[in-house]
Amino acid sequence: MNSCQVLRDAPVRKVALFGGTHGNELSGVFLVKHWQEDGAEIQRPGLEARPFLANPRAVEKCCRYVDCDLNRVFDSENLGKELTGHVPYEVRRAQEINSLFGPKGQPEAYDLILDLHNTTANMGGTLILETSRDCFTLQMCHYIQDALWPDSCPVFLLEHPSLKYATTRSVAKHPVGIEVGPQPQGVLRADILGKMRKIVQHGLDFVQKFNAGQEFPPCTIEIYKIMEKVDYPRDKKNEITAVIHPNLQDRDWQPLNPGDPMFLTLEGKTIPYEGETTVYPTFVNEAAYYEKQQAFVTTVKEKLSAKGLKVS
Amino acid sequence: MNSCQVLRDAPVRKVALFGGTHGNELSGVFLVKHWQEDGAEIQRPGLEARPFLANPRAVEKCCRYVDCDLNRVFDSENLGKELTGHVPYEVRRAQEINSLFGPKGQPEAYDLILDLHNTTANMGGTLILETSRDCFTLQMCHYIQDALWPDSCPVFLLEHPSLKYATTRSVAKHPVGIEVGPQPQGVLRADILGKMRKIVQHGLDFVQKFNAGQEFPPCTIEIYKIMEKVDYPRDKKNEITAVIHPNLQDRDWQPLNPGDPMFLTLEGKTIPYEGETTVYPTFVNEAAYYEKQQAFVTTVKEKLSAKGLKVS
Repeated sequence: MNSCQVLRDAPVRKVALFGGTHGNELSGVFLVKHWQEDGAEIQRPGLEARPFLANPRAVEKCCRYVDCDLNRVFDSENLGKELTGHVPYEVRRAQEINSLFGPKGQPEAYDLILDLHNTTANMGGTLILETSRDCFTLQMCHYIQDALWPDSCPVFLLEHPSLKYATTRSVAKHPVGIEVGPQPQGVLRADILGKMRKIVQHGLDFVQKFNAGQEFPPCTIEIYKIMEKVDYPRDKKNEITAVIHPNLQDRDWQPLNPGDPMFLTLEGKTIPYEGETTVYPTFVNEAAYYEKQQAFVTTVKEKLSAKGLKVS
Repeated sequence: MNSCQVLRDAPVRKVALFGGTHGNELSGVFLVKHWQEDGAEIQRPGLEARPFLANPRAVEKCCRYVDCDLNRVFDSENLGKELTGHVPYEVRRAQEINSLFGPKGQPEAYDLILDLHNTTANMGGTLILETSRDCFTLQMCHYIQDALWPDSCPVFLLEHPSLKYATTRSVAKHPVGIEVGPQPQGVLRADILGKMRKIVQHGLDFVQKFNAGQEFPPCTIEIYKIMEKVDYPRDKKNEITAVIHPNLQDRDWQPLNPGDPMFLTLEGKTIPYEGETTVYPTFVNEAAYYEKQQAFVTTVKEKLSAKGLKVS
């Protein structure tokens, strides 16, 4: 291997495991509470792994959020907002999280945050990345995919010229979302819990091996890159007039070709997908996205290459 | 047929279709809104079929309820409560519903309410009855089961010496719950919607045929009678310490035998069912019942006989 293809990176010492960024996504909430009582399974030599409940008020109420979506307010405007007068609870909380685990973009920030989410969509165990340029997280995804094989582990890349997320985990140097479904809001399923737990274990194993000096050769992974949000058909009163077509329901990550059924009206009319190219829908029929005017998001498959990686 | 086995009952003129008794159970909400715009499919000669959104504030917020569960307050205490000072929204609403569709137990009350619900449990399309002594609803269940065959349509009987429900639909002379799942809260699935719609159609067909003079011979149906509520294992802080075992998850209406796996802890320990006889669990892992300290309910299978039925 050509040594100039190997990136030398500092050891990863500070890792956080976030649950309850959304209070009704219970697998992460349950795991974090468990780890706070008994952290044996997340402890690894040479690193601090801190379990943390991101939105305790929403957890208490078993709802997604109290005032606004915590997972959308980690931008400079909200993180820099003066806390006078009425400021949404989640904006206050975001500033707390930023001071505990950030500051975002600064050298003192946590090295890695694994942010645990559930979805009502049939996404399986998905890894979510915010950038295509972070070799560390790409290598981590490659490692987790390998460890889970033959089970699939899609990687969803939230990199888009205009859609910005400002996620809770973005305060860390290396943010990784772990999105496991299908699971209804407010429910704990053993199968989903097991899947999430395995992904976390493999992620921490990767960090431990990296810190211990293991060299990870250059690799290529297939990712699904976000393209656009697709809303439900609606009437003038903004009421939904058609639902996800049975042929699309539960088919996250499967190809949707021009002309394929997309929605079904109550009159039995099929509304086809009219794009010009094949896309790969995901977050299909996610409960939390009805209010965000989103029936699913389209993605395209791409390959990303990561340099080799070794601790410096 | 022995004519004294035939019950002669008055025609059923006033029927209501309730959606949104729980605001995040969207199939009924969606259907009722649709029928309010275009009621063609629920109109039948000789009867009024009124679509009605039971808890509009909860529908607006896409939550189960605002102050308290609307589907538990139709008892004499709440229906008779003086509306002074702080009274929960749902208690006020219950009194409105009682004056629009009741009064409960009085001759002016609606003849029939079909109350549309969803569950996160794998209950399929279930009919819920409040009493074993109402030949009209037993005959209706028999008719719907026949019409749906070979698809199954379990009948769940909420008749118990101490567990009282005080449901919204109980204001009608003949209350029938239609519970369809699995569907996450806040989600509309085409398959679940189709199942609910079919049940409603067959229910209205039954009423129409009854009103038109068709005689329904005596019949026997198998029902699942509620026995007891089973809670999750919890610690001293009331936190759940185990989840529904994979062998029980999604197996509503299937036999649970003494010794069968029931819960699974995070340490991987299986907690078996320790009852003395076989039961048939339902509402397994229903999201809304976590706060009610209920992991599932057990039922026993029984056969109920209904007299023949003809309009008087």
